[in-house]
Amino acid sequence: MDLHDLPTPALIVEVDAFDHNVATMAAALPGDRLRPHVKAFKSTALAHELAVAGHLGFCCATTREMAGMAAAGLGHDLLLANETLDVRRLQALTTGADARITVAVDSAETVEAAARGGVGEVLIDVNVGLPRCGCRPEEAGRLADKARSQGLEVRGVMGYEGHLMTAPEDEKAARVERAMAKLTAAQEAVGGDVVSGGGTGTFAVNRWCTEIQAGSYTLMDTHYGATDLPFRQALFLWLTVVSVNRSAGYAVADGGLKALGMDHGNPTVVGGEVWYCSDEHTTFGPGEGGTLPAVGDRVRVAPAHVDPTVAYHPRMHVVRGDEVVDDWAVDLRGW
Amino acid sequence: MDLHDLPTPALIVEVDAFDHNVATMAAALPGDRLRPHVKAFKSTALAHELAVAGHLGFCCATTREMAGMAAAGLGHDLLLANETLDVRRLQALTTGADARITVAVDSAETVEAAARGGVGEVLIDVNVGLPRCGCRPEEAGRLADKARSQGLEVRGVMGYEGHLMTAPEDEKAARVERAMAKLTAAQEAVGGDVVSGGGTGTFAVNRWCTEIQAGSYTLMDTHYGATDLPFRQALFLWLTVVSVNRSAGYAVADGGLKALGMDHGNPTVVGGEVWYCSDEHTTFGPGEGGTLPAVGDRVRVAPAHVDPTVAYHPRMHVVRGDEVVDDWAVDLRGW
Repeated sequence: MDLHDLPTPALIVEVDAFDHNVATMAAALPGDRLRPHVKAFKSTALAHELAVAGHLGFCCATTREMAGMAAAGLGHDLLLANETLDVRRLQALTTGADARITVAVDSAETVEAAARGGVGEVLIDVNVGLPRCGCRPEEAGRLADKARSQGLEVRGVMGYEGHLMTAPEDEKAARVERAMAKLTAAQEAVGGDVVSGGGTGTFAVNRWCTEIQAGSYTLMDTHYGATDLPFRQALFLWLTVVSVNRSAGYAVADGGLKALGMDHGNPTVVGGEVWYCSDEHTTFGPGEGGTLPAVGDRVRVAPAHVDPTVAYHPRMHVVRGDEVVDDWAVDLRGW
Repeated sequence: MDLHDLPTPALIVEVDAFDHNVATMAAALPGDRLRPHVKAFKSTALAHELAVAGHLGFCCATTREMAGMAAAGLGHDLLLANETLDVRRLQALTTGADARITVAVDSAETVEAAARGGVGEVLIDVNVGLPRCGCRPEEAGRLADKARSQGLEVRGVMGYEGHLMTAPEDEKAARVERAMAKLTAAQEAVGGDVVSGGGTGTFAVNRWCTEIQAGSYTLMDTHYGATDLPFRQALFLWLTVVSVNRSAGYAVADGGLKALGMDHGNPTVVGGEVWYCSDEHTTFGPGEGGTLPAVGDRVRVAPAHVDPTVAYHPRMHVVRGDEVVDDWAVDLRGW
């Protein structure tokens, strides 16, 4: 199919950029040095491409993602890199899935939920500076003891330095080192051989984790794109211009707030300048030195934040040039 | 089912507030004085409640919403209050749906798409100040002639004063009057008896439209809630606290950017103060004079923007007090 025959709004993946991203990361962090984070793309079809590239362990943010990965035959080593108290969903996962299941825990309550949910293995989630989940580093050893006392195998620790993903390059390595010092200290108390953490923004400087949890690098967004990463923008929202106001100097394309994650601000129209987004529209001007498109023209829009953008869409259309070459269902949405 | 047995994150509708909102609007704008906008809630089950309240005509933002409403037996008078060039989707709609279908047009191209798509009736969409779709008021008559020359019935005009929805109360009526003067002037040139426009923020002051296109009033959000409207917050995201950091003074609940429209900023945790949202988490403090919850507690989160929030969810759970009394599928998502 020709890209111009695709009904809009549609999410497209430029496969040459995607392949570049996957190959670049696999060269830097081959095999199980990378544990790709499924939350960025929520697609078993995309995850399968990463397995082909050599990464067989994955991490997930929801039990739904875990169950879907297992059902797709990608359950070699699945980590729920998040806390849950939902014993029923854990039980459904551990009894129904043909998969190795590991779950993050950071409190007595989450340890108990894991044990009741039939989980065999856990990581102690340690807070390394991001104000989110994770126990205090000095509590990690005690929590590991508690987990073991409830019959859980403790594989090691996890700590996500999410607050440093887009830190200035000249500070990033030193700040990641300080964050990871907390994690490695916790690991000494916890035991186990897994030290899991990191992300797209720190993969190159985080030398302390045994495995890096990156996902955004596959598709990218303009937030990460503004940094010095060696990855290319592969994900675009593909829209049709449905209205043009030449006297006021703007055009309107047929996708907006319900097709784009907006927490990082406006997306970027390729060849234009965004005025604002509304539910089903993006209003944009021609940008400096550019011209307004015509009604019926198509435009590419680069999202500001990949994860909540993909979560709005039922599928991604894989394109090479103007040809649609594949279709990846976003089959891990919801909870 | 008890609300506390509902897996989280879940979108809940407090039915007493919803009923208040529906009754309040139906008293102000009974029957076809209101054309509820489906885009706010994307649910035929919710739309059915509005039909029971006496509103039989609806407007939609997508062909998907139009087709779903028709299939649900709610096709008495459906307006696509948006521009489209997608002839195939229009053809599928006009040949497949047992419904009265009217479509907004604002250009020669959209007139032609409507005609080729088998649409029988159109409204001329007029720009009344919002930088989005709509022809210039002085072009409306000529566009109506063009539509009629292509065999389309022109029912009248449409003009959405979206830029005035949350205008200061002491200016709102005068500014709406100026915007609507453009629309009524256009109607004189166009003919027809429909003047469609308005929304939740202007329903009380827009005396020029024959029908008001409001949808947000049913569920509400904190953006509209900050104004003087007589509607109550009926929609909440229902979350479980999965982690608490007492030394740092925050708690973490299990829903975030993939469950909330973020373009209007952070949501509001009832009884708390939001620090920030990430993909699957909301980090919040206790708020002034409050206390931190415990791991396992549930919290209500009021969204900042209703439409893109609902669009993330497969269903809404209808609750009265702590009892889940119904379940409304969000069956009109996607495109």
